[in-house]
Amino acid sequence: MIEIPEKADFKRFDIAQLEKLCADMRQEIIRTVAANGGHLSSSLGCVEVITALHYVFDIPAEPLVFDVGHQALAHKLLTGRAAEFATLRQKGGISGFPSPLESSADTGISGHAGVAISQAVGLADGRAANAVPGKVIALLGDGAMTCGVSWEGLTSAAGRKNLVIILNDNNMAIARNVGATARYLSRIISGARYNRLKEKVRLFLQTHKTLYRAADKIDDFLKSALMPPSTIFQELGVRYIGPVHGHDLAELIPLFRQVRDNINGPVLVHVITQKGKGCPFAEKDPELYHGIGGCDPVTGEMKKSSSTSFSKAFGEKLTELGKTHPELEAITASMLDGTGLTPFKNAYPERCHDVGIEEEHAVAYAAGLAMAHRRVVVALYSTFAQRALDNIYHDVALAKLPVIFALDRAGIVADGPTHHGIYDLGFLRQMPNMEILAPATELELKAMLDYLMTVNTPAVIRYPRGTSRCERIPSPIERGKAEVLREGKDLVIWALGTMTQTALESAEILAGSGIQATVINARFVKPFDIGLARRFAAIPTVTLEDHHTSGGLGAALEETLSAIRHVPLLRCGWSIDSPIPHGNTDQIKMQYQLDAASVAARAKNFLTTIPE
Amino acid sequence: MIEIPEKADFKRFDIAQLEKLCADMRQEIIRTVAANGGHLSSSLGCVEVITALHYVFDIPAEPLVFDVGHQALAHKLLTGRAAEFATLRQKGGISGFPSPLESSADTGISGHAGVAISQAVGLADGRAANAVPGKVIALLGDGAMTCGVSWEGLTSAAGRKNLVIILNDNNMAIARNVGATARYLSRIISGARYNRLKEKVRLFLQTHKTLYRAADKIDDFLKSALMPPSTIFQELGVRYIGPVHGHDLAELIPLFRQVRDNINGPVLVHVITQKGKGCPFAEKDPELYHGIGGCDPVTGEMKKSSSTSFSKAFGEKLTELGKTHPELEAITASMLDGTGLTPFKNAYPERCHDVGIEEEHAVAYAAGLAMAHRRVVVALYSTFAQRALDNIYHDVALAKLPVIFALDRAGIVADGPTHHGIYDLGFLRQMPNMEILAPATELELKAMLDYLMTVNTPAVIRYPRGTSRCERIPSPIERGKAEVLREGKDLVIWALGTMTQTALESAEILAGSGIQATVINARFVKPFDIGLARRFAAIPTVTLEDHHTSGGLGAALEETLSAIRHVPLLRCGWSIDSPIPHGNTDQIKMQYQLDAASVAARAKNFLTTIPE
Repeated sequence: MIEIPEKADFKRFDIAQLEKLCADMRQEIIRTVAANGGHLSSSLGCVEVITALHYVFDIPAEPLVFDVGHQALAHKLLTGRAAEFATLRQKGGISGFPSPLESSADTGISGHAGVAISQAVGLADGRAANAVPGKVIALLGDGAMTCGVSWEGLTSAAGRKNLVIILNDNNMAIARNVGATARYLSRIISGARYNRLKEKVRLFLQTHKTLYRAADKIDDFLKSALMPPSTIFQELGVRYIGPVHGHDLAELIPLFRQVRDNINGPVLVHVITQKGKGCPFAEKDPELYHGIGGCDPVTGEMKKSSSTSFSKAFGEKLTELGKTHPELEAITASMLDGTGLTPFKNAYPERCHDVGIEEEHAVAYAAGLAMAHRRVVVALYSTFAQRALDNIYHDVALAKLPVIFALDRAGIVADGPTHHGIYDLGFLRQMPNMEILAPATELELKAMLDYLMTVNTPAVIRYPRGTSRCERIPSPIERGKAEVLREGKDLVIWALGTMTQTALESAEILAGSGIQATVINARFVKPFDIGLARRFAAIPTVTLEDHHTSGGLGAALEETLSAIRHVPLLRCGWSIDSPIPHGNTDQIKMQYQLDAASVAARAKNFLTTIPE
Repeated sequence: MIEIPEKADFKRFDIAQLEKLCADMRQEIIRTVAANGGHLSSSLGCVEVITALHYVFDIPAEPLVFDVGHQALAHKLLTGRAAEFATLRQKGGISGFPSPLESSADTGISGHAGVAISQAVGLADGRAANAVPGKVIALLGDGAMTCGVSWEGLTSAAGRKNLVIILNDNNMAIARNVGATARYLSRIISGARYNRLKEKVRLFLQTHKTLYRAADKIDDFLKSALMPPSTIFQELGVRYIGPVHGHDLAELIPLFRQVRDNINGPVLVHVITQKGKGCPFAEKDPELYHGIGGCDPVTGEMKKSSSTSFSKAFGEKLTELGKTHPELEAITASMLDGTGLTPFKNAYPERCHDVGIEEEHAVAYAAGLAMAHRRVVVALYSTFAQRALDNIYHDVALAKLPVIFALDRAGIVADGPTHHGIYDLGFLRQMPNMEILAPATELELKAMLDYLMTVNTPAVIRYPRGTSRCERIPSPIERGKAEVLREGKDLVIWALGTMTQTALESAEILAGSGIQATVINARFVKPFDIGLARRFAAIPTVTLEDHHTSGGLGAALEETLSAIRHVPLLRCGWSIDSPIPHGNTDQIKMQYQLDAASVAARAKNFLTTIPE
């Protein structure tokens, strides 16, 4: 286990001791993430920045708000969580993200990007109103600056005397950073003539070719070198300092001291770091090692994962459809690889748009493309689609544009409550003109995409991370039709998506107790299969879904039957009113009785409560 | 009725004829909005800009995308809707907003601000892919530029050859423009040394003192006058032209021709207009006449509205609470007057924050204030809360911060589908740690605010525009307790919010047919009154709510009872899958059978379907 000094000792460390501590923390992070999986590259990139902040400021009395919280591992080590660090992302262990519920050193929830400035402005104002001294620090990184809400926060920051924004610029969102904000930051870096740290920076830049490359041509470079000492940030009323070498403690610490003692107003410190720093394989391919399932800590060799997955099937099928549909375009918000779009991007680079962490823009942009008669698929994670719900409603559904939303990571995920995708149906089911589908298997996902290409309204298709481990050949997809996979007279189980497999296993178990269950793969949440629902309305019913019970399949069935049904219904899904924790998803499903054995037991017990 | 020339004739008009047409359209807009209610000041401000755009560009072959669509009335007149203009905002008449479903001249849905640039970038890319010639024009206005999603769109605009952005800058969001973006635009205006139209602009500015005032001090003014010819827009890769006099056709038309013919790349034209232009009373108080219920077309005297309303009661009560709770802060997103916060602002200016049209920032900022132990109320319209749902979930609910969300305009509104507030519960009910209340009357709203000040979790309180017309003294508010207002053995009606009054009236009507109904004021959607639900579980039940049936009260009751109930339930609410139109809300409720007589008839019929 790593040795973390007591706070008082830490504050007396010299640079050499701090550098040693950073190296140790870096090794601990590599070792732990390699073993447990999680976010590697980003956390490695800001070890020195976090250490320098803790060294200079009185954290957490001076609160540190993370943006994209997966940067925070060094902060966790420095704030009393070294002893339990090996439990990172394990069920019952510490989270991969900051969490005020885990430690009072963590300020604010930071699983979704872009909100740290706004939260920090609120903290700054609230503390000023309560006459609390000290600074509030927001640590941005990994493309968070491109989010619209970051701009909203930044344009609201002027005048806050106690606000410090650290922009950890690694020239990457999760993948390569995109858009004008990123280009602008690159230009600042390459044209920092006015900066007194110019030579140091230049040397640093020369060793970091990706940054250098941003200044496309020498001409541009020279032009930008003549830029006046004015930045967008200063235009917006926030003092700009930078760029600064983000791995050099001897540079960071005096600068942070200046900021702490001599700057009375909002300030943004632009820090240049390298994603994956100090870990050869992560430095080489920071995107690949952004978030991993686990790897060899020395070679970086990835743990073998399943040869297929819903994301992979999605990418394969979309690439195939791109051939026959030259009007097909795909959009993602910084999740090109995560959503499986990379093969599509490779095949049709001009028809694949990674817009950065800008979900709202992604959807409004899709609406525009659809208005111009392009066929658009927007691939988002379910949890991040929440950021664009209004655009899905306002820009797409109301206009009845045939945009397909492919929601990956629907259902619970290992990352925990900030990332669980279990709320999408609750809002989307209400939207006008919308079809909503969920495939039980990868092959069904492909068949549904074929079907969706024939649909002329907005549509959603949702599926989880990973694989169904099921290669059943799907029957043809028909609009609004569910599929009966097994018939039995005692009970009906309606299941959604991959929970269909769980339902089939539960039915097997129940058969062992002499209970014969019908199993239905719902396929469509909307339009819902009213005919089939009516056919089975007199039989006790269980619904099973990897979604909150308030808004999903169970609710859709209820709604369909409530005016006619006389038989009770048991809804199985996520129904607790407190956040569902992080950890291995199979273990969590077991804890919350959503595995096959538990569902069978619940169904059996449910049948005993029904009067003859 | 106003005479609108044929398109071919219009294109041959000279400036004098165009000016005459603008004057006529302005009078038509004043006359119609004075009679029917709607958005007055903004539409008056951009009559010339819209006319010049139609004159120069080939609209709609070159699509015009509105941001904040309530600017669009002159566009409606110019695109074939003059004959039906008197039906503006009437049930069955033309909408107060652009709508592609109403006219092919309307591109995109634009009831919510900030999305026009993104939509236009998509249109530009889609048309380029399809090799369609011509420009795509986005017309921004009224504070839309402050929205984060506008920044997302802007930072994605670089390189689009066919994209024209018109920034209609009236120095106002809906109320006074706020934040650094607004200040920045003011600084451009006041420091336009480099502009060849400088003198004209200066003269114009001198006659518009509000713009002039933006340059706080002469010092600042001189400093900004020395600014280099560089703007944020240019830094982001969008050519900047301006500022331009937005009411001078002789200036606008040649400039737009230049943009059409000689600029090959994204360009932003910064147009200065006056909100309310040409209407003395609207010029004098553009905020008051932003959106009106109707007024005298000459004097501006407002049609009398009810002396009370939920918004007014909210503002009164919050102002009262501000006295005893010095830690109470209020936040709104450009709806200070609309949400009733003005008295609170007047009493405690430093504790009232209008952040502009930035709902995401509003909520994340609230989270920050709450982390600093301030007590925060965020007042939003239900429809605009959709823009911050992820922040409500991620920044507030997960962190269990005691922020109160006051959702005004919940339920349908006269403005139509872009503004109906009938989806909030579907998403919010799923969120962890959240209480959700709905008052039946203004007095109950006040009592619930007293209650909410004692609650230590996130909470939502939702209520409609207007008044309940009911002065019943509420019984004490208890957590998770509904209120039985009337008892009858044949039927139970659970009602939410002001629909409680409708339920009572329905019960009276039913009593006339010998059917005795219990009426319950639900009060809490979450935690739902399970005890009372069980008590009445054996009696046929109707739920009644001004919300979509998929996610609201009916769903909450179903969920509570589904595993035990054996009696059918009829859900009355908004359940259609196509958008609900605009118009008088009483008439729309009648059309969709949500008035007292219809509900009574539906309930009676429902009882006949239930087997004994």
